Amino acid sequence: MSAIEAPYLMFLGDAPDQLAAKTAFGVKFWRPEKCLGQFRLPGCKADLGLPDMTIEEAAKAGVKTIIVGVANRGGVMGQSWIDPLKKGLELGMDISSGLHKKVADVPALKEAAAANGRKITDVRHPTRDFDVASGVKRPGKRLLTVGTDCSVGKMFTSLALEAEMKKRGMKADFRATGQTGIFIAGDGVSVDAVIADFISGAVEWLAPAHDPDHWDLIEGQGSLYHASYAGVSLGLLHGAQADVIVIGTEANRPHMRGLPTYKLPSLKETIELNLRCGSLTNPAIKAGGITANTSMLSEAEAQDFLKRAEDETGLPATDPVRFGVGKIVDFVARL
Amino acid sequence: MSAIEAPYLMFLGDAPDQLAAKTAFGVKFWRPEKCLGQFRLPGCKADLGLPDMTIEEAAKAGVKTIIVGVANRGGVMGQSWIDPLKKGLELGMDISSGLHKKVADVPALKEAAAANGRKITDVRHPTRDFDVASGVKRPGKRLLTVGTDCSVGKMFTSLALEAEMKKRGMKADFRATGQTGIFIAGDGVSVDAVIADFISGAVEWLAPAHDPDHWDLIEGQGSLYHASYAGVSLGLLHGAQADVIVIGTEANRPHMRGLPTYKLPSLKETIELNLRCGSLTNPAIKAGGITANTSMLSEAEAQDFLKRAEDETGLPATDPVRFGVGKIVDFVARL
Repeated sequence: MSAIEAPYLMFLGDAPDQLAAKTAFGVKFWRPEKCLGQFRLPGCKADLGLPDMTIEEAAKAGVKTIIVGVANRGGVMGQSWIDPLKKGLELGMDISSGLHKKVADVPALKEAAAANGRKITDVRHPTRDFDVASGVKRPGKRLLTVGTDCSVGKMFTSLALEAEMKKRGMKADFRATGQTGIFIAGDGVSVDAVIADFISGAVEWLAPAHDPDHWDLIEGQGSLYHASYAGVSLGLLHGAQADVIVIGTEANRPHMRGLPTYKLPSLKETIELNLRCGSLTNPAIKAGGITANTSMLSEAEAQDFLKRAEDETGLPATDPVRFGVGKIVDFVARL
Repeated sequence: MSAIEAPYLMFLGDAPDQLAAKTAFGVKFWRPEKCLGQFRLPGCKADLGLPDMTIEEAAKAGVKTIIVGVANRGGVMGQSWIDPLKKGLELGMDISSGLHKKVADVPALKEAAAANGRKITDVRHPTRDFDVASGVKRPGKRLLTVGTDCSVGKMFTSLALEAEMKKRGMKADFRATGQTGIFIAGDGVSVDAVIADFISGAVEWLAPAHDPDHWDLIEGQGSLYHASYAGVSLGLLHGAQADVIVIGTEANRPHMRGLPTYKLPSLKETIELNLRCGSLTNPAIKAGGITANTSMLSEAEAQDFLKRAEDETGLPATDPVRFGVGKIVDFVARL
């Protein structure tokens, strides 16, 4: 993927509710300085709290890329979306989309991009080729967020760690492996959409050799314990050659996401299997902390949950949203 | 992938040596009854020992599919290949190719296939979509070949087990996950070419629910210990929901294939990690035997190597090429 140029206009279309604009919210939360405004069609029920702009106003304001960070109804893009996106291309802006269906395949938009020399990137669909992973150890430090399950806040943790490290003057870069992360970083690769043979190779490309004191904070995906996606997680772990893993979970989640008969593994099991498998490409791999989504718990219950996680694992445990990740950076810096 | 119709004409083109026709040899070895003849261009140095046929003779003999089971020079298909393949389509035969570059993308062949209502399948490039794996346990028995490394004879073992089981009147089907296997079975999926999110789902599709006393012999790929490809191997293991794994290795291999700084894991480690990870989707998973490529050893050395493997693992060990797989089927039938 080539870099996505900021600043952005956040295209919300006719999103039926706030949840449909989850990706756009993530970008606005982590990179508000990149988001000049939002574009909403009649009936749009999402609101990022950004200035509403027409396509013309966005172009005048200096927007470089229109970000389609919204789930559309039924996977089909209506005519109501196509006209304003086409106008955007004509006025000199690029489009970057997180939809499953490729925006670059919509004939009217494909033609308008070609006619105006603009770029459409569909971030869920890697277009570049990757090499097979070499497995050769590269300099620089890498921290990968892993999890008991999918959707336990790996991206949030990686970004929070990047922010905390930068605040402390450490050299750190977030490395995105999913659509929201890619809009936030302006670059990255959707590892779950890569051809299976090249998962680890894509991660070697994403987080290449760097200064010995530089940290890449690599966004994890899935879980070694997820019956549908573990292959992606293992390829990511091997390609990352992680020096440190940070393990995410969600308090009181009843079962693995999408798999009602599978219960979550314990933190201890999750740590042990990740360290064991990760040691293949980095024998020095260590666990650096636990992050938990405790939003279902009261503050007292959350503190209790985190205390038990610390007792079980001997690692610092936090809810990044409630309590930040300072104690994890303290611990990782001492490793 | 839709099924590849037999009988076959084996297209060898101008293969520079026997090794370039390795795939074609595999098909001929395991399914001689499917292979009516071979087609060779001037300069071809490979010979399957099949009757040489012109395209016209093949069509008259009743060939349904021309199998391109040969590595071409530099990945580019010369004009000398295109003309006879085009003739084949015109005479009513399909084409199935194991080349990296898609035959279906060669304009002259694409047009000829459309004009004559013929089918071109590029078996390295899955065209159908797969669902994400459900992880739901399905009836029937499944045996997956795994390995210490790539290229240790997993396909050979799976096919030998199928043949031995059938000889004994057991219900058994080979399930192909790589190009040669797909030509042999006439169907299958190149799992390493599937989008990463769908590895396990593709295997659930490939080896679906079956009679309780039926064995699917699933061709394994890669190794959990291979730094480039382990993601594929883990997805395969989870999707297979293997009841039994048979572990392959090669005697005296100096290092992991393509990775000079990685040494092979021990059989014990390989078994243990595969059982541990495989137990996620099938808690009853068991190890059923060891197969070793001992072609670098004398017969006495091979016997000694296998004896040590049996002592180390407590499992029957054999070289399928030298000594068959009868003792493994004995052991698996008793499990």
